[in-house]
Amino acid sequence: MSVIVLGTVALDDVKTPFGKRQNLLGGSAAHFSMSARLFTKVSIVAVVGGDFPQSNISFLKSKGLDLSSLSMQEGKTFHWAGEYKGEDLNTAITLKTELGVLSSFRPSIVKGQQGIPYLFLANLDPDIQRHLLKIMRLPKIVALDSMNYWIDTKRKSLLRLLKDVDIYCANDKEAMSLSCEDSLIKAAKALHKIGPRMVLIKKGEHGVLFYNGKYFFSLPAYPAERVVDPTGAGDTFAGGFMGYLAKAGKVNDKIIKDALAYGTIAASFNIEGFGLEVSSKLKMRDIDKRLTSFRKYASF
Amino acid sequence: MSVIVLGTVALDDVKTPFGKRQNLLGGSAAHFSMSARLFTKVSIVAVVGGDFPQSNISFLKSKGLDLSSLSMQEGKTFHWAGEYKGEDLNTAITLKTELGVLSSFRPSIVKGQQGIPYLFLANLDPDIQRHLLKIMRLPKIVALDSMNYWIDTKRKSLLRLLKDVDIYCANDKEAMSLSCEDSLIKAAKALHKIGPRMVLIKKGEHGVLFYNGKYFFSLPAYPAERVVDPTGAGDTFAGGFMGYLAKAGKVNDKIIKDALAYGTIAASFNIEGFGLEVSSKLKMRDIDKRLTSFRKYASF
Repeated sequence: MSVIVLGTVALDDVKTPFGKRQNLLGGSAAHFSMSARLFTKVSIVAVVGGDFPQSNISFLKSKGLDLSSLSMQEGKTFHWAGEYKGEDLNTAITLKTELGVLSSFRPSIVKGQQGIPYLFLANLDPDIQRHLLKIMRLPKIVALDSMNYWIDTKRKSLLRLLKDVDIYCANDKEAMSLSCEDSLIKAAKALHKIGPRMVLIKKGEHGVLFYNGKYFFSLPAYPAERVVDPTGAGDTFAGGFMGYLAKAGKVNDKIIKDALAYGTIAASFNIEGFGLEVSSKLKMRDIDKRLTSFRKYASF
Repeated sequence: MSVIVLGTVALDDVKTPFGKRQNLLGGSAAHFSMSARLFTKVSIVAVVGGDFPQSNISFLKSKGLDLSSLSMQEGKTFHWAGEYKGEDLNTAITLKTELGVLSSFRPSIVKGQQGIPYLFLANLDPDIQRHLLKIMRLPKIVALDSMNYWIDTKRKSLLRLLKDVDIYCANDKEAMSLSCEDSLIKAAKALHKIGPRMVLIKKGEHGVLFYNGKYFFSLPAYPAERVVDPTGAGDTFAGGFMGYLAKAGKVNDKIIKDALAYGTIAASFNIEGFGLEVSSKLKMRDIDKRLTSFRKYASF
């Protein structure tokens, strides 16, 4: 089954201890797609400005992505500039955020996409996320990501929206902040009570914690020695996770565990290069090969 | 096969968000023994002062521990006072450290203990650790724990000692500090090069990372909702780990993984109560029961 992702397609300036890059093709929807495309057909719902290079469009198309709901508006493409410093490569320091055409974005989709069964709402204003969710025709699985900015400024909208999603993806700080709990276990339980059937807490280098109201499941991160650029790791994870779920077409314990492992492996490639450098070249056999060594690493 | 542990037997004052306790029986050797005793015979090498309550001696004996090398000296028992605050229950704030008889401690063992094949050198001055290691008759497995204080003040002694041990147990901060690396993966590799065949990095609530020069292995922590007092969690972990290795009597991949899991489960009980409250009452069936749910939680 296919996947539709609402998110950003952006131009990124990134500085890390390994170098700097300008105007990299990035954004949550782009990172998500690079891993999800390995499993199934992916449609992107996003907006770019008139300055968005045609070469980027061609590039995304060459990856097999459906861009029919990628809207091009007059104005500038969403532009993010960030830096990762020293030891804490988990947390970006945002240097600049220029919303551009994103500031007036109202997502719309082309005919025929309403029935896509797997929907990923990447981090955006929860009101915009809800807007797309309402257009869709009862998707089978809806997963949502957000960020601390919306937890702080649009808490009510976000909490309301969480009642209508199946999977809430958060990082550790967001999970504690939204739940007002001081441990991830308590946070996962509290977030599950809000509405989503499944809660997935991304802990960066410490892996991921999953909770579905019945049991917890934990997976470490892949042991990466060289983190070149962590931008988009969370979305690449989500892409691998949702892509695998969509390909499986159903949800059970084993499928969830495998989906989390695929997400973990996809993210481990993403961080090895700037932007989409590594993840865009990924083949399924790269993922499967690393998954085999990961199973040894993480299973007992 | 049996285990001998060199460490402290102490009186602890502990304050956590769940309450405070004074003059708790504690110390690295005591915590280690509470889990190791479930697997094999344990001999303690430590020192206490004249103020050490006879009731504590009786208590340790009632747990089946061999105290024939627990020396009683004139003076005060090692006394530690610490507090755990707010969200970071991983890190103790030390309020007081009174070395007492520990300051002049030179470990000695009774006849017949030189041949004990499994030796755990809990955190102490590396020169004192070496002193005992020299007395022993070629133990099969030597594991060593240390702390940042020795890394900072006796770095050379510690590095020299590490050439003669099989397993180095460190927490994440210690591992990075001793190796001068900025990631745990790099730290584990660098520490392995120093000498120990196996490196075991304890990450508190994020579990444990193991490296043996050939492969990495990672295990999450047990998902504890209620951390009453984390004092001694690392030593309880080491006790479960070493105890299981000693019981197995050999080392292979499966045994190492299972030993790490037993250590994890033992530590998860320790933190549920003050001092030895919970760990001293543990039965093997409690461990095995929790291990079954942990396997579900951590395997995929």
